[in-house]
Amino acid sequence: MNIGVIILAAGEGKRFGGDKLFAKIDNIPIIMRTIGIYEDLEKVIIVGKYVNELLPLLMDQIVIYNPFWKEGISTSIKLGLRFFKDYDAVLVALGDMPFVTKDDVNKIISAFKPSCKAVIPTHKGEKGNPVLISKSLFDEIEKLRGDVGAKVILNKMRMEELCFVECSEGVLIDIDKKEDLMRLGNFHP
Amino acid sequence: MNIGVIILAAGEGKRFGGDKLFAKIDNIPIIMRTIGIYEDLEKVIIVGKYVNELLPLLMDQIVIYNPFWKEGISTSIKLGLRFFKDYDAVLVALGDMPFVTKDDVNKIISAFKPSCKAVIPTHKGEKGNPVLISKSLFDEIEKLRGDVGAKVILNKMRMEELCFVECSEGVLIDIDKKEDLMRLGNFHP
Repeated sequence: MNIGVIILAAGEGKRFGGDKLFAKIDNIPIIMRTIGIYEDLEKVIIVGKYVNELLPLLMDQIVIYNPFWKEGISTSIKLGLRFFKDYDAVLVALGDMPFVTKDDVNKIISAFKPSCKAVIPTHKGEKGNPVLISKSLFDEIEKLRGDVGAKVILNKMRMEELCFVECSEGVLIDIDKKEDLMRLGNFHP
Repeated sequence: MNIGVIILAAGEGKRFGGDKLFAKIDNIPIIMRTIGIYEDLEKVIIVGKYVNELLPLLMDQIVIYNPFWKEGISTSIKLGLRFFKDYDAVLVALGDMPFVTKDDVNKIISAFKPSCKAVIPTHKGEKGNPVLISKSLFDEIEKLRGDVGAKVILNKMRMEELCFVECSEGVLIDIDKKEDLMRLGNFHP
């Protein structure tokens, strides 16, 4: 089964006030922590506004620069998807979620069955990321516009089309504001 | 018919001695001249060693950074191809061939018929670039390794599988050495 990972790193980081992805936790930039989680999988990193700052960290990765980053996250997901269009599924990962564990990722992939249009990780019942999206939804993703993610598609689906898998707290934690960084600096999943 | 353009700009420029693609002809960087030729078509620009120097020129383009650029041109073609895998054909354009004309490109595309596995532009019978490669050869391209381009595949094909179209001298002219730049500075196709 072919699964490609799309790591979204094109956001403007408005709430953070500048790009958070090269801010460090325990001396390692957040984006490097996130990439490390998916190191054994095929992946592309989508960058936007902060391409010049991020690239020096990404010289051993396939990186796609999204010139439409201002139009929102859907443009980044769609660019990544084009790269994996002939794959069975894509895992849409957020660059600012460095506390997802490799074990979480393995669980999400293992939960994927032909009957799942998507696999959504949960923690204590709350839905998180990264979400695995099967080929059967790729056409729907192509139709997304503006600053909306795959969630919009998943929210419209019947429960029996979706698969869920219980994961660590890391699937819920994103770095959104500078305060998050302070608070989570000592978080070790 | 869907045609995607792959503009190759990941080369090391060894013979030139540094990156030639931001050297200027009549005050316009070579890579910008080349991109201009294909402005009306869907395209990706593949960059490598000189990504940091080229990117500031490419902020309105879809750019793919090829981390395997040292392994040669086949790795760049394959990355670009992944982006257009569901297309009818790709036009493989070289970043250092800024004298191809829009008229040449129109002729190449117009010459594409279902019986052509590739369309090769010629000038006075000599074969040039960019070459249009049909979907039927995409699997062959996937098998390329190292510093070889699509030419290796085309050379093995039967003449009746290939289509040719006579174009301007621009399809033969690449900027290879600093002397080329001097000599061609006043070349206006």
